[in-house]
Amino acid sequence: MARRSGRRPGNPDTREAILTAARDVFAERGFDGASIRAIATGAGVDPALVHHYFGTKDQLFVATINIPFDPQEILPQIAAGGLDGVGERLVRTFLRIWDSPAGTAGAALFRSAMNNEWTAKLLREFLVTQVLRRATGLLEIDPAQAPLRSSLVASQMAGLVMVRYILRMEPLASASPDVVVAAVGPTVQRYLAGDLTGLTEPASPGTDTAAPGTGPASP
Amino acid sequence: MARRSGRRPGNPDTREAILTAARDVFAERGFDGASIRAIATGAGVDPALVHHYFGTKDQLFVATINIPFDPQEILPQIAAGGLDGVGERLVRTFLRIWDSPAGTAGAALFRSAMNNEWTAKLLREFLVTQVLRRATGLLEIDPAQAPLRSSLVASQMAGLVMVRYILRMEPLASASPDVVVAAVGPTVQRYLAGDLTGLTEPASPGTDTAAPGTGPASP
Repeated sequence: MARRSGRRPGNPDTREAILTAARDVFAERGFDGASIRAIATGAGVDPALVHHYFGTKDQLFVATINIPFDPQEILPQIAAGGLDGVGERLVRTFLRIWDSPAGTAGAALFRSAMNNEWTAKLLREFLVTQVLRRATGLLEIDPAQAPLRSSLVASQMAGLVMVRYILRMEPLASASPDVVVAAVGPTVQRYLAGDLTGLTEPASPGTDTAAPGTGPASP
Repeated sequence: MARRSGRRPGNPDTREAILTAARDVFAERGFDGASIRAIATGAGVDPALVHHYFGTKDQLFVATINIPFDPQEILPQIAAGGLDGVGERLVRTFLRIWDSPAGTAGAALFRSAMNNEWTAKLLREFLVTQVLRRATGLLEIDPAQAPLRSSLVASQMAGLVMVRYILRMEPLASASPDVVVAAVGPTVQRYLAGDLTGLTEPASPGTDTAAPGTGPASP
């Protein structure tokens, strides 16, 4: 999906060393806390070489987690037109990627994130910094509401991956994109653009949550 | 929580042999195709012993996949009151179970289903036959629409598990039940009771079990 830059791949060992160091640093410090300098140090190379091989920190991050699309290419297409109809565009674009052969890589990443705390951190960082933050910025969503809206969208889309591509539960596993868009698009639309006022937490943690003793015990 | 029957646990080896055989048979033939007789044969015991240790086929199935709740106990609570407000009741009950210590077992099952085709089949069978089919029956949902409605609900709830409990993406990971119910409840409500006419495929096989091997075509 993502068109790679025209740079030559360079020395495979060096590239691999940079990618390995980058995965460690991104997982440990998060995307915002990670620096090209720290990654270069971890790989034992000059920071200029990291830029030479992988471009920007964003591009390096995309390369580390082997995601089957480039958010910088996809998100502007979804955001074009603003909030009007964005739910439908998002779901349709999502299906186009996941229904394609590239979806296999995405499913592998997803599986890995379920069992590996390190991959889960990378995936979460990726979704938050490369996809959701960028998308809510392009859509000019109120920054105070953007995190909740983002994680709600993520919940619906992650569940769609799980049911359609991993559990393969019918009829959603074989449903045409049109059906999925018509069913799920309005959910995403509401999460991104619907009225969610009153859904911010009160200043102190509520006391009306279920008492710990009332929950089911393990069998 | 499911109250276990008053039966004594019996010989641990025999119990374990029955559970192992049951997992094989349920994964291979599905819940509907599995018989106590086949499970007993697999375990090398008399069918009466299977009933003695585990009760009905439903109860045996719940025991095999170590699910942290008993659908026969939970679903009538959610369905009481009918479709009115069912989305909110479902999400609230779901959170009560998953936010409790029992949620840990659920997350483990979920993780396993992501990486193990056999567990994925069991979990899908469990959701379809023990949870979704039963729930749509209690709610008297049009059988022609029940499978699509069910798998849509499953997609939202599976994604909630993924984002809140496994990826732990904020603010959804720490949001109070009230916030999650207010945000996600209407989605579930629409999937169960909203207008989804026109969302049935032109000529799709109207079965509520997963069709093995058939997926969305690659573009």
